[in-house]
Amino acid sequence: MTQRIDLNADCGESYGAWRLGDDDALLGIVSSANVACGFHAGDPSTLRATCARAVEQGVRIGAQVGYADVRGFGRRFIEVPPADLTADVIYQIGALQAIARSVGGEVTYVKPHGALYNAIVGHTSQARAVVDGVLACTSGLPVLGLPGSEFLRIAAEQGLHPVAEAFADRAYTPEGTLVPRSHPGSVLHDPDEIAARVVRMVFDDTVEAIDGTEVELHADSVCLHGDNPEAVRVAARLRTVLEGAGAEIAPFN
Amino acid sequence: MTQRIDLNADCGESYGAWRLGDDDALLGIVSSANVACGFHAGDPSTLRATCARAVEQGVRIGAQVGYADVRGFGRRFIEVPPADLTADVIYQIGALQAIARSVGGEVTYVKPHGALYNAIVGHTSQARAVVDGVLACTSGLPVLGLPGSEFLRIAAEQGLHPVAEAFADRAYTPEGTLVPRSHPGSVLHDPDEIAARVVRMVFDDTVEAIDGTEVELHADSVCLHGDNPEAVRVAARLRTVLEGAGAEIAPFN
Amino acid sequence: MTQRIDLNADCGESYGAWRLGDDDALLGIVSSANVACGFHAGDPSTLRATCARAVEQGVRIGAQVGYADVRGFGRRFIEVPPADLTADVIYQIGALQAIARSVGGEVTYVKPHGALYNAIVGHTSQARAVVDGVLACTSGLPVLGLPGSEFLRIAAEQGLHPVAEAFADRAYTPEGTLVPRSHPGSVLHDPDEIAARVVRMVFDDTVEAIDGTEVELHADSVCLHGDNPEAVRVAARLRTVLEGAGAEIAPFN
Amino acid sequence: MTQRIDLNADCGESYGAWRLGDDDALLGIVSSANVACGFHAGDPSTLRATCARAVEQGVRIGAQVGYADVRGFGRRFIEVPPADLTADVIYQIGALQAIARSVGGEVTYVKPHGALYNAIVGHTSQARAVVDGVLACTSGLPVLGLPGSEFLRIAAEQGLHPVAEAFADRAYTPEGTLVPRSHPGSVLHDPDEIAARVVRMVFDDTVEAIDGTEVELHADSVCLHGDNPEAVRVAARLRTVLEGAGAEIAPFN
Repeated sequence: MTQRIDLNADCGESYGAWRLGDDDALLGIVSSANVACGFHAGDPSTLRATCARAVEQGVRIGAQVGYADVRGFGRRFIEVPPADLTADVIYQIGALQAIARSVGGEVTYVKPHGALYNAIVGHTSQARAVVDGVLACTSGLPVLGLPGSEFLRIAAEQGLHPVAEAFADRAYTPEGTLVPRSHPGSVLHDPDEIAARVVRMVFDDTVEAIDGTEVELHADSVCLHGDNPEAVRVAARLRTVLEGAGAEIAPFN
Repeated sequence: MTQRIDLNADCGESYGAWRLGDDDALLGIVSSANVACGFHAGDPSTLRATCARAVEQGVRIGAQVGYADVRGFGRRFIEVPPADLTADVIYQIGALQAIARSVGGEVTYVKPHGALYNAIVGHTSQARAVVDGVLACTSGLPVLGLPGSEFLRIAAEQGLHPVAEAFADRAYTPEGTLVPRSHPGSVLHDPDEIAARVVRMVFDDTVEAIDGTEVELHADSVCLHGDNPEAVRVAARLRTVLEGAGAEIAPFN
Repeated sequence: MTQRIDLNADCGESYGAWRLGDDDALLGIVSSANVACGFHAGDPSTLRATCARAVEQGVRIGAQVGYADVRGFGRRFIEVPPADLTADVIYQIGALQAIARSVGGEVTYVKPHGALYNAIVGHTSQARAVVDGVLACTSGLPVLGLPGSEFLRIAAEQGLHPVAEAFADRAYTPEGTLVPRSHPGSVLHDPDEIAARVVRMVFDDTVEAIDGTEVELHADSVCLHGDNPEAVRVAARLRTVLEGAGAEIAPFN
Repeated sequence: MTQRIDLNADCGESYGAWRLGDDDALLGIVSSANVACGFHAGDPSTLRATCARAVEQGVRIGAQVGYADVRGFGRRFIEVPPADLTADVIYQIGALQAIARSVGGEVTYVKPHGALYNAIVGHTSQARAVVDGVLACTSGLPVLGLPGSEFLRIAAEQGLHPVAEAFADRAYTPEGTLVPRSHPGSVLHDPDEIAARVVRMVFDDTVEAIDGTEVELHADSVCLHGDNPEAVRVAARLRTVLEGAGAEIAPFN
C-alpha cells in the first residue's frame, strides 16, 4: 500500500554575505520548502534564488513567518503586541508572495518559525494574531504547526486548514509532546533510527516515546533539518528509506 | 474648462514609536498616497493604518519603494547591486500589496523614494533594476518619476506607463530640471505663490524658471509635502486654489 | 533645611529623521540624563549632540541600555540569553562612553530602559546579566533601578552602587510598588499634584498610595518624562516647586 | 638579517546564527586582528569571544569600522554625511574598546572595512570624517590603509600614525595601485606564488606588477584573508614561508 507523506524543511535562511544551510541539496529531498521571509533571515535576493530553485525542483513554497529579529535569528521570544504581530505576518506573506510569483511560484502555506512557532503552542493572543494575519492576507492558506497547539486550534476554528507536523529527529514524551531540547536524548542523530521512526509515523501513526511506550501520532508533514551537512545526509537517508518502504513523498493535500 | 490633475504625497513614514507627518490631514488633500514600504520608513502596523485611512478617504495607494536604510530614512545613496535592488523592489511592492489588500485597498502604482528617486534620474543600472522589479512583480503598474529621467525612459521602453510628476514647491531651471536644494531659492515657501505656479502647470503646462523665463512642463501628477504643519497648510491651500480655478483633483489615468 | 535630590529623564531618543522628546528643554531641568545607546533609539549623531548639550548644561550622563529593538523602541520583552545580554550591555556602555568623551563628557551611571528595566525587576538571570555587563565594562558605575528589584539587589551584592529611583507621575500600591499602567489612575497628570507628591518623597520619604494609605519610599533620584510638550511642562513645574520648597537639584552621590 | 612584519586579517565577522571565517585558525597566524564592530558584522557576543581569543593568542586588536549595513556586509558604498560618519566611527571604536577591555584586551589601531576602505582612498570628505572620528575618540590610535590614499594622507596631516598595508593575494599595477577585482588576474590563488611575493615585499620592498615590471612597495603590514578554508591555508603557508626566510611576524610599531 502506498502512503503519501509531505516532507518539509526550512530554506532561504542565508543573509547577505552569510550562508546557512544547503538549499540546493534540501530542495532535492523535501516536497515543501518553508522559505524565510526576511524578518529572521533571508534577504530578498536569497529568497528569490531559493524560490526559483524550489520552482525548478517542483517543491511547494510556504511562508516561514517569524519575529523581526535578524540578530537573534528569530529564536528569541519577543512580546510583540498582537495587532503588530498580525501586521508583521501580513507583510511577510505578501513580500514572499511577490518574490515567489516573480519566478513563477506561489506561496501555498504558512509555517511560523523558531521562537514564534514555540510561543504559539500556548500563547493564545500571539497564536490568534498569527491566524488573523493569515486570514487577512489571503483566503485559505493552510498553516503548519504542532498538533495540540493553540495555533492549530484557533486556525481550525477560524476556518483555516491546519496541517499537523511531526519532527523526524526529536524525542517525544508519553503524552505525544516534544521532549524539550534541554533534556538529554531530546534530539536524535542516528540516520537509520530516525528513518525507522518516521516510517512508523507515516505507516502506523505511532512513535516510540522517550520512556519506551508507544504513542499515537498522526502527521500530515514531517519536518527535517538541513542547516549542516550531517542534517542533509540524515534527510537524504530518510527519503530513501521512506520510498523504499513504499511511501510517496508529496506535498500535503 | 475642467482640468484633471493628480496630487500625490508621501505617507506612512512613521516608524515604531516615532511619528512623522500628518497622514490624516494629507489624506484629506491628495488623490494619491505614496505609502512607504518598510525599507526606509513604515513599520507594518503603521502601513496598515495608513492604507486603511487611504481606503476610507478614497485615496489611491502607491508603493513608495526605497533603499533599505531606516537610519538614513532612505536619503543616502547606496550602491546596491542591480539584482539585489530588483529583489528589494519586488519584496517591498508585495509586502505593501498584502497590507493594502488586508484593509480593502490595492497598490496601483510605484514611486521610488528619496535617494533612490534621485539616483535613478541618471543611474542607468539602478533605474533598470527598479523597472525590472516592477515588471517582475505584477503586470502594468504605472510608475511615477521625474520627466526626462532614465527611470521613466526605461519604464516606457519596457511597456510600463510612465507618470510625469512636477514639484509644487521646487524651483525649476530654464531647462526644466529641478534647481538643486543646495541653491538659494530652490525651495518655495509662500502658499499663494506655490498655488499660483501649480495652477499654471496644470492649465498651461508651463512654469516660470528661476531666471524668469517660461518653461514648458507637463505633469500628470503634482508632488506635495506633508512632513510638517506648514507643509500641510501649503498643501491644503493648493487644493483650494486649484479647485477654485476649475481643476478636478483625481488620480491620474 | 536643604534636601538634595537628583532628577533624571530619558534623552537622545531621536533616530535618524525622527524626532522624539525635547532634549534641549529637558536638559535645562534635570540633573541626570539617561542617554540612549543606539539599541532602542539614538543614532550616533543624535547621541553626540545630546551628550554635547548635556555637557554644556552641566548635566550628568548615564547610559540608558536596552534591548536591541529599534522597531519596538525597546518596549517589548525579548528573551535574550544572559551571555548575549551581558555583551550587549558592555557594547552599549562603551559606545556611549566614546561618544560622551568626544564632546568632553563622561558616562557616570547606567540605567536600563523600557522592557529591560521592567524585566529585571523580577527576571533574575537577565538582571544578573546586566550587572555582569556593568561590572565587565568598567569599575564602579552606579546603577539606577527600582527599589526592591532583583537588579538592584544583585548589583549591591556584586559591589555596585545601587541608586533607588521613584517616579514622579506614577501611582504606588500600598506595598510601595508601581501600579501597573493598565490600571485606571496609574499615571498622574496634574502638575501641581505631581510636584506636591515629589516634595513629600524628597523631604518626608513617603508617598500616598492609590488606596490613600501612606507608604514609606526613599528615592535617590526621581524619574521625569519629556516625550511630549505636556510632560516637559510638568517637569519644569516640578523643578520650580522643589526648589521653592528648599530642595537642591543635583546629581545623586 | 631578521625583518619584522605585521600580518593582519579581518575577524569577528560572524553574526548571530551565521558563521563566517575561521577566527580560531586565523588568530594562530596573524599578529593583528581587524575585529568587526557590529556595523557591518559582529554581534556583541561574537566580538567578545573573538577579542578573548585574540588576547589568549597574543594578537593585537584593531577596530574594523564600517558602514552601518549588515545586509550588505559593509560592501556597498553609502553616501553617509561626514558628521554622521564621524559619529559612527566614534561609536564603533568605543563599543569595541569596551568589549576588548572586558576580556583583558585593548583596541590599539583602526582599519576601515570594505566599501568604506575603498571609498576613502579618494573620497576626501569621508576620509576626513573617519580621521575626525579616530581623533575624537582617543589620542593617537594608528590607522591602517592603502598607501597613497586620501585617508592615510589626511591621517598623517592630523598627527595620526599611518600604517601602510599591502595585500598578499592581489595583483598590482605598474603604478603600485591595486588591479581592480573586475580585471582578470587581479586576485592570486597559488599559495607558493603568494608567499614568494610577500617575501619580496618584506625583504626587498618590491612587488612584480601585473605587466611584469618591478614596482617599489613598502608595507608596514600585510593583509591576509580568512573567509574560507583555502584562504586560511594560504595564510598559514605564507607565515611558514616568511618565517623560513627569516622574518619575524609581529605587530607593527
